[in-house]
Amino acid sequence: MRTIEWKDGMVVIVDQTKLPNEAVWVKIADYKAMASAIKEMKLRGAPLIGVAAAYGLALTAFHSKAETREELLKELEMSAEVLRKTRPTAVNLFWAIDRVMKTVRETAGTKEALAEAVVAEAQKMADEDVEVNKRMGRFGAELIEDGDVVLTHCNAGSLATVDYGTALGVVRAAIEEGKNVKVIACETRPRLQGAKLTCYELMRDGIPVTLISDTMVGYVMSRGMVDKVVVGADRIVRDAVLNKIGTYNVAVLANEHGIPFYVAAPMSTMDQSRTSGDAVIEERSPNEVTNVRSERIAPEGIKVLNPAFDITPLEYVDAVITEEGILYPEVHLKPKNKQTKRKN
Amino acid sequence: MRTIEWKDGMVVIVDQTKLPNEAVWVKIADYKAMASAIKEMKLRGAPLIGVAAAYGLALTAFHSKAETREELLKELEMSAEVLRKTRPTAVNLFWAIDRVMKTVRETAGTKEALAEAVVAEAQKMADEDVEVNKRMGRFGAELIEDGDVVLTHCNAGSLATVDYGTALGVVRAAIEEGKNVKVIACETRPRLQGAKLTCYELMRDGIPVTLISDTMVGYVMSRGMVDKVVVGADRIVRDAVLNKIGTYNVAVLANEHGIPFYVAAPMSTMDQSRTSGDAVIEERSPNEVTNVRSERIAPEGIKVLNPAFDITPLEYVDAVITEEGILYPEVHLKPKNKQTKRKN
Repeated sequence: MRTIEWKDGMVVIVDQTKLPNEAVWVKIADYKAMASAIKEMKLRGAPLIGVAAAYGLALTAFHSKAETREELLKELEMSAEVLRKTRPTAVNLFWAIDRVMKTVRETAGTKEALAEAVVAEAQKMADEDVEVNKRMGRFGAELIEDGDVVLTHCNAGSLATVDYGTALGVVRAAIEEGKNVKVIACETRPRLQGAKLTCYELMRDGIPVTLISDTMVGYVMSRGMVDKVVVGADRIVRDAVLNKIGTYNVAVLANEHGIPFYVAAPMSTMDQSRTSGDAVIEERSPNEVTNVRSERIAPEGIKVLNPAFDITPLEYVDAVITEEGILYPEVHLKPKNKQTKRKN
Repeated sequence: MRTIEWKDGMVVIVDQTKLPNEAVWVKIADYKAMASAIKEMKLRGAPLIGVAAAYGLALTAFHSKAETREELLKELEMSAEVLRKTRPTAVNLFWAIDRVMKTVRETAGTKEALAEAVVAEAQKMADEDVEVNKRMGRFGAELIEDGDVVLTHCNAGSLATVDYGTALGVVRAAIEEGKNVKVIACETRPRLQGAKLTCYELMRDGIPVTLISDTMVGYVMSRGMVDKVVVGADRIVRDAVLNKIGTYNVAVLANEHGIPFYVAAPMSTMDQSRTSGDAVIEERSPNEVTNVRSERIAPEGIKVLNPAFDITPLEYVDAVITEEGILYPEVHLKPKNKQTKRKN
């Protein structure tokens, strides 16, 4: 089942803030509700928020009462403006909005033809996302050996995409090829997407998964319990990968232990116009750190940092797995293989 | 106020599982209640559980109805046996029990004289702990510069000791010398001693502290926001420091950024009879990872790892601060100072 679907002029999503305790399906009726859902992380994951934004524009087009082509265009520009402001770091959001708006501008004909084209483009992007993940998975599976334990951070799975997943798509593809693969999931504080979402979707699909706290990454690596790391990405700039906070910790530790560190992300995640120096890191509410749902875990009034993403220089990245093939960054640290007692 | 006190034949402790929400003082009446309190982590921190175990023996001696010296000795041996089995990793527990039992065996005279000697020894150890921490603090303060931001993991503060603290004792001593010092506290999953205890005691004492999730360690270091790392230790073996899970992550990241990594621990934490190869790492209940108090954060049935400690090889340790002075391990990685934009 897809994480997001178009149904009779509505968009249906699973509310990820309620997982794994409840699978609640929510109907999104307009672009404003979609913008809120993205901001509140009812849906998250770079590829998914891209498609969600496209669907947000489709909702505007589908329900528009505009009388002219120009009026509809104005409405779409306004919706795009609001959707762009939801989350700053993942580039797929901007890529998706730009793609839909380009289609709009290139579509000739009436207001009705335009509306139809927007909905069709959003649908196409959703379909493409699944297709892209499967292709990425097949390329990435080449890097995974039978018996591997893959450590992953956050959730770069079917719940971060329309279906199949990026990092977890690589795991799924390797398993579909008949390889025995197990996953170690970092819980990924503060929002716990690893504990809540990665564990949920892997257990649902019968893929063996073990949960660890983020503090245990070095421990499991030093004990030889990890063969590969595969994570997703929110934006890949010229010199670095921007991904969920904690990814950089994992990358440095993987490098220290000589464990290959792979990033799986669609080409739409690439942003070659920027370097890590001009990357915008979203700072989210302190409550995400001081509270775990209703539980307060720190004193009232405590000062908190809450960057949602971090920056992993390409030196720490052994390969970037895309739907067009595997890219190998030119700069590289030397593998150290220190302390790690590998299985063979 | 001390974290643990002897009062009219009872031991009074603050229940650390209830902090920072409530400061509940609990009376401990016998060695069994003390063993439970240690196991359930109502009190924790290597130096503190050492003193707590000594007080556990004092409770046995004080309330004993034994009629002979031999009977009392037997009761003390039995109590020691139970206390030894509470937690395997921190060496201070075993050191403290051995020290009290040695005093017992060396004390001549009646059953009454023996009982008195046990209580006196436990009291002396509590007093010494405070004195040792203050001396350690003065040595450690030499390593801290005016304006430093010190990152710490877990709680090695007054709540991990009788008073003053080891790692946080170093911070306190530097501040008492008139230096401007700020702290970044890692929340320290799974039990969140950083968020709950370190933030609590530093805020209480007016020391500036910022809370981060464990995932943010690399981020704050890469942004040049950390000048020194100071942590405590549960056991220092010939080649490594055993400390709270996540310490090794922090050590590797500090080394990668050329940030000095210091361990503050009393000489009673030294265990030169062992190496990291024969260290026992306590594995605690999966519930600590899957639940934050009443909140379930992972699917039912998920497989979990929960090692309570990890192993940091001495190569990553720039200095060990003790009450006898600063020790410099002989083996060392080279400082890299990579990526870090230092303040000056």
